[in-house]
Amino acid sequence: MTAYNAFYAQSGGVSAVINASACGVIETCRRHDDRIGRVYAGRNGIIGALTEDLIDTTPESDEAIAALRHTPGGAFGSCRYKLKDIESHRRQYERLIEVFKAHDIRYFFYNGGGDSADTCLKVSQLAEHMNYPIQAIHVAKTVDNDLPVTDNSPGFGSVAKYIATSVRETALDVASMCSTSTKVFILEAMGRHAGWIAAAGALASEDNDGPPHIILLPEVPFDRKRLMARIDETVKRCGYCVIVVSEGTRYEDGTFLSDAGNTDAFGHRQLGGVAPTLAGMVKQDLGLKYHWAVADYLQRAARHIASRVDVEQAYAVGQRAVECALEGQNAVMPAIRRDSESPYRWSLFDAPLSEIANQEKFMPREFIREDGFGINELGRRYLRPLIQGEDFPPFENGLPKMAQLALRPVERRLPEFEL
Amino acid sequence: MTAYNAFYAQSGGVSAVINASACGVIETCRRHDDRIGRVYAGRNGIIGALTEDLIDTTPESDEAIAALRHTPGGAFGSCRYKLKDIESHRRQYERLIEVFKAHDIRYFFYNGGGDSADTCLKVSQLAEHMNYPIQAIHVAKTVDNDLPVTDNSPGFGSVAKYIATSVRETALDVASMCSTSTKVFILEAMGRHAGWIAAAGALASEDNDGPPHIILLPEVPFDRKRLMARIDETVKRCGYCVIVVSEGTRYEDGTFLSDAGNTDAFGHRQLGGVAPTLAGMVKQDLGLKYHWAVADYLQRAARHIASRVDVEQAYAVGQRAVECALEGQNAVMPAIRRDSESPYRWSLFDAPLSEIANQEKFMPREFIREDGFGINELGRRYLRPLIQGEDFPPFENGLPKMAQLALRPVERRLPEFEL
Repeated sequence: MTAYNAFYAQSGGVSAVINASACGVIETCRRHDDRIGRVYAGRNGIIGALTEDLIDTTPESDEAIAALRHTPGGAFGSCRYKLKDIESHRRQYERLIEVFKAHDIRYFFYNGGGDSADTCLKVSQLAEHMNYPIQAIHVAKTVDNDLPVTDNSPGFGSVAKYIATSVRETALDVASMCSTSTKVFILEAMGRHAGWIAAAGALASEDNDGPPHIILLPEVPFDRKRLMARIDETVKRCGYCVIVVSEGTRYEDGTFLSDAGNTDAFGHRQLGGVAPTLAGMVKQDLGLKYHWAVADYLQRAARHIASRVDVEQAYAVGQRAVECALEGQNAVMPAIRRDSESPYRWSLFDAPLSEIANQEKFMPREFIREDGFGINELGRRYLRPLIQGEDFPPFENGLPKMAQLALRPVERRLPEFEL
Repeated sequence: MTAYNAFYAQSGGVSAVINASACGVIETCRRHDDRIGRVYAGRNGIIGALTEDLIDTTPESDEAIAALRHTPGGAFGSCRYKLKDIESHRRQYERLIEVFKAHDIRYFFYNGGGDSADTCLKVSQLAEHMNYPIQAIHVAKTVDNDLPVTDNSPGFGSVAKYIATSVRETALDVASMCSTSTKVFILEAMGRHAGWIAAAGALASEDNDGPPHIILLPEVPFDRKRLMARIDETVKRCGYCVIVVSEGTRYEDGTFLSDAGNTDAFGHRQLGGVAPTLAGMVKQDLGLKYHWAVADYLQRAARHIASRVDVEQAYAVGQRAVECALEGQNAVMPAIRRDSESPYRWSLFDAPLSEIANQEKFMPREFIREDGFGINELGRRYLRPLIQGEDFPPFENGLPKMAQLALRPVERRLPEFEL
């Protein structure tokens, strides 16, 4: 049996565990070197395939590949780039085939979220539409947890654990300062469309009596007056108020809170940042002393506080993707099934990519508290298993040790290509 | 020998390890129960003493007290409140004596920074000026690392480790996204007057070739044109640029960057936040895609990534404070001496409080790079030992477990007192 080569690439916003999936893909390919020759990583996602900018992972030591499991970010570079339709942009697809042919690539593993699943789906169609024998398997990744079909997305559990840990820690800080200083603390979490990440802040307490007292979700229209009344009441009752706000929080009409600064709130433009916008409202309406934090990339890069469940699932979907390819599958994505909640047990199943590409899973209404200021026990029950277990990286000189890759480029065999 | 009671309180901004000092104080007192009776904690610092709002730590189990070592925030509440002069505010001091007498308190342990050291010093003078036999010992704490005399301040090492870890992690994120997305990442660190915390970001790389490429310190006047040129050059050379900015960054004339929005930069007011201000300049001057994060309380509450050296020193200064009291000392603070740098060895010595109160230690000029955009190897050599070692808290259900204290109030014996 001839051994063909594999292409692997990372796409979209990276996460604390996307490299754990890379590790799962590459290690599994190495175990099947009778059927899979070399693993070429695309530099900067699909762009690496189009521009023939390939990295040969073969010279990387087993130790270096193993270290990917505990290294955040995208080791081979990621991209925000979506393939157009085959009909209108045939040349792009011909180019992909040229590159795949030139490097004997017949396995295509694409590691990303919903947009990237669309790219993977289009590549999978090369088989049918352009008669090139490729098997394209998607490897799930998104901190936003908004992929459909799968119970949860690798990458989310770790950012959820980061946010919940940070809320639990900072709430103790605010509680100790509130008698003479800060009364309101606002933490801004990622999630432009779905409130999963902000919702995870709720895990900081066992129930809704403890902090965070308020979570603002994109799924619930923003109501300044109601919110301020709630903050005021919380400070009077508890002495302080901890708020987690999703960056996607918006008004009834869909305007993002962070975009509304021009005409509303302050009468001036905000440079992104829902937390400072909200802090301004707290100052203006209630006159309370506040602090705010914007976690931004900190949250999705925080491999040091990754969820062990998340790391294991990220690795497993990478491993399973290779198995799918070896089984002859195309246009699928290994998805996670929740077999049992307590104790948490999960398994993988192969989901058709057509059901996944370009779709977003929002938080179900039944997870949201009746007052809209957070999630309920049903939501907590869904989230809890995903942050279980620790998987600390090795430390050296007081800091997490990262994978050191040689990233050896593959010699180009084709003319240049304009993107 | 009669056993007198002890008073312990926390003051100023809290840290990831101030409770480790509390643990050191209380555990050491318990080991000397022949000479120290009960340890009363002041609720919200010195305010607890003035208002006779005392917490009896005696009923707390040994396990609960031990758990303070891994619990961030101030378990007994902190305050921003400074005692006035004895001459002009004699009534306050008389009240302190009344409370101390009413509860047989003769040992006073105050856990805080430079301002709090002043309060501790004033209490120590009760002995001389008002003939009350008190021994006041200061327990060093400040994330800002700006206490004089001591080589470093407990609390700083952990925030330094948090910032360095976060920079190392996020730099990998930015590096992987920069080809098609974010080119400039800005992390805002605490430090209103001294740049120690921002400087610690430099530990993310071995030398100044790696990220963070630029650190902005309060010690170096802000020069927009020079900075933008450097960012531009860095992005061209490395593909991306990671910046750590101290919240205290200011113009030549002393105006804080974050306060300057009204008249400069954007022509509108910023709600604090140097990072978004800087991001706006990057957008305006260079048109580069940016992301920014403001760590705020996250950094000083992040016990989950505390430095082991820091935790040990925090505990040790608490322990030594009690020993100082038992030796009959007054108006001293256990300070840290650097005995050796590599390998790092440290010991404690007793420093007179008069040399510590109300003084700030800035970063020495010789630690700062010639170009002003960060620190040099000398600075790194000073900082490196302070972030060594990990001391992960116990986790339960995926989250750090915190101390659960009963916080039993001591029955009041005196009339109320107006602050």
